[in-house]
Amino acid sequence: MASVEIRPFEPGDWPGVWRIWESVAIAGDTYDYPPESTEVDARAYWLLPPPAQVWVAVEGDTVLGTYKIAPNRHGLGDHVANGSYMVSPHTRGRGVGRALGEHSLDAARAAGYAAMQFNAVVSANTNALRLWRALGFIIVGTIPNGFRHQRLGLVDFHIMHRFL
Amino acid sequence: MASVEIRPFEPGDWPGVWRIWESVAIAGDTYDYPPESTEVDARAYWLLPPPAQVWVAVEGDTVLGTYKIAPNRHGLGDHVANGSYMVSPHTRGRGVGRALGEHSLDAARAAGYAAMQFNAVVSANTNALRLWRALGFIIVGTIPNGFRHQRLGLVDFHIMHRFL
Repeated sequence: MASVEIRPFEPGDWPGVWRIWESVAIAGDTYDYPPESTEVDARAYWLLPPPAQVWVAVEGDTVLGTYKIAPNRHGLGDHVANGSYMVSPHTRGRGVGRALGEHSLDAARAAGYAAMQFNAVVSANTNALRLWRALGFIIVGTIPNGFRHQRLGLVDFHIMHRFL
Repeated sequence: MASVEIRPFEPGDWPGVWRIWESVAIAGDTYDYPPESTEVDARAYWLLPPPAQVWVAVEGDTVLGTYKIAPNRHGLGDHVANGSYMVSPHTRGRGVGRALGEHSLDAARAAGYAAMQFNAVVSANTNALRLWRALGFIIVGTIPNGFRHQRLGLVDFHIMHRFL
């Protein structure tokens, strides 16, 4: 991890982010983004305007992963952040996901959020569940059959939460 | 209820919908819409484009209540509907909320949704909780302190769900 840097997204990072994003969406096993999403769709989904923040993990010129945080709800619920994370399939096992998760908790705290919530953690995504539990999240709810997993069929979404 | 009709929203219904919407948002005790929302904001929040549906309960020319249903998530999660409901403060106790709720379940079923989910039922909103339980919803999760209730301070959001 010594050579990996986490910094705010810059326009030149997009091709690397899109490569990761596309592979995640097409797999259809961790996010409910439409698998047929175009690059234009992906930009609209991921590069949200402020107060959202988009960050990348890079090693030299290579984007290894990315995350975004944004208010989970508007108005009288905007003190809770939502986070979304993607890591390159070629980078798994190097701790980049964990580093992004920890970084996002600091970023959310610094931005004044009181808590972080995930609305749709796929129940079959055991790596994600293990990571989020290790970072202090608990499952606060479960949506039965909320996700049409592209290999397993209907599976649950877990809602996870932690105070900051 | 004999004189109350539930039908699709028409442009001429907007002043009546806005009157209800504004009073609900300003009260800040059942929805997290920004209390300072303008009429333009409200249109953008409530009059969502298809596949969302917006309905009104009317008695003659008077709008008594309104609801909308829309996919709760996109892509691989869009088989679950989300519903939002508002009833005029002057109409409470006449069963309009219940009629809208029942109507929305039929509308969601007809549109092919497999389930209905509410993401943010305010824990202090006992009338809503009683109604949704009566209509077959259960609490599947709770977001602690998710809502800045304008009279009570921080209270929980419940997530409610039922299959259709």
